[in-house]
Amino acid sequence: MQLFYTPDINPKSPNYFLNEEESKHCIRVLRLEKGSEVQLIDGKGSLYAAIIQDPHPKRTILQIISVTNAFNKRNHYLHIAMAPTKNIERMEWFLEKATEIGIDEITPIICQRSERKEVKVDRLNKIITAAMKQSLKAYHPVLNEYVTFKQFLTKPFEGQKFIAHCENTDKTNLKAELINNGKFLILIGPEGDFSTSEIDEALLTGFKAITLGDSRLRTETAALEACFEVNFLNR
Amino acid sequence: MQLFYTPDINPKSPNYFLNEEESKHCIRVLRLEKGSEVQLIDGKGSLYAAIIQDPHPKRTILQIISVTNAFNKRNHYLHIAMAPTKNIERMEWFLEKATEIGIDEITPIICQRSERKEVKVDRLNKIITAAMKQSLKAYHPVLNEYVTFKQFLTKPFEGQKFIAHCENTDKTNLKAELINNGKFLILIGPEGDFSTSEIDEALLTGFKAITLGDSRLRTETAALEACFEVNFLNR
Repeated sequence: MQLFYTPDINPKSPNYFLNEEESKHCIRVLRLEKGSEVQLIDGKGSLYAAIIQDPHPKRTILQIISVTNAFNKRNHYLHIAMAPTKNIERMEWFLEKATEIGIDEITPIICQRSERKEVKVDRLNKIITAAMKQSLKAYHPVLNEYVTFKQFLTKPFEGQKFIAHCENTDKTNLKAELINNGKFLILIGPEGDFSTSEIDEALLTGFKAITLGDSRLRTETAALEACFEVNFLNR
Repeated sequence: MQLFYTPDINPKSPNYFLNEEESKHCIRVLRLEKGSEVQLIDGKGSLYAAIIQDPHPKRTILQIISVTNAFNKRNHYLHIAMAPTKNIERMEWFLEKATEIGIDEITPIICQRSERKEVKVDRLNKIITAAMKQSLKAYHPVLNEYVTFKQFLTKPFEGQKFIAHCENTDKTNLKAELINNGKFLILIGPEGDFSTSEIDEALLTGFKAITLGDSRLRTETAALEACFEVNFLNR
């Protein structure tokens, strides 16, 4: 069934007006007619069922017939802060896959060894939105503006905090540490890994060092592995 | 350290001759000199340490100084048979990521609902080789020629066999079923899922139906999720 992302929907209104672009897509491209059913997600957990009341090519009117709140709400909260990859396509596919598998918040962090010093959040958000629609998720993962590693460490976080790095030091792993149904924050470094001073700062700020297995993983693969592990362990 | 993939290496020979392309890369591009150390992987589990004996731009001679056999040998065997994705790039990144995380054998299977009816295995193999080198794996995953789903089911397999599909039927999951350190074969369907007749055939052939979680996953994401779960459960 056709799905529309409608973050501006008013839960109290019996109707929703598709904007010009969506109306055109709905009526001219998909050729949906009066009475056809569509789905709406607001990105905040609500999934609406609606039918086309007035199939106008510029201002289609939908009638809301039912709403499901907290649709497929996950039983935990995952925030991954990762250094954006040198080749941004690699971060893009991480965002697509993480949205499919399950993630709540992403923050791009610029580290000492980051080759990429900035990211265009708007473009990345479009990829998240497309993946959210494709995988029928009612919650839109939050993508924060990029910050430096140092700035990020000053932000408070109520939950378990982990840093995945490649230095040969004492490490634990998520299987051993993770407390189910909690809030988790995981730091993933750039292609050249975190610097030792960054690792030390994180440990001093209450992060635990973890390993994601014996394989040498690319930045975006490590981030996805962490996302897999957290979702899998919370099943 | 520079790594070369040398499937033709003779374990008994004290030397290895880089071919013209590799020699040029080694000497002209990387500007490595006599005495520099490099690593060689044969794709069959052996990792060699070697030094440059004669830095010839067309026929560099390496001297083998040590060999590690069964380097990072994994404790299980994973064969994923998947329908190639309509957009082949999606299968390409699956192969890259699965190689990083850990996989032994891949077979593209053409299913009733496959939109893509063929794949160029040579190109896909290059991606596997690059990922193997990047993630320092001594074993080269085997990519088989594509076959039809029906043909594939006639091939024997000694190990646990699973089919991941989206139909709403009785299913188990890998966490409950997987016997550690074994051999595993997992079937992943095309964008439109396996047909009910394909699912029935698989069940009759001894495959167990599994779920990979509640999320609606793309073909390549489902295949990677299966790869992740098998590796994670075998840790």
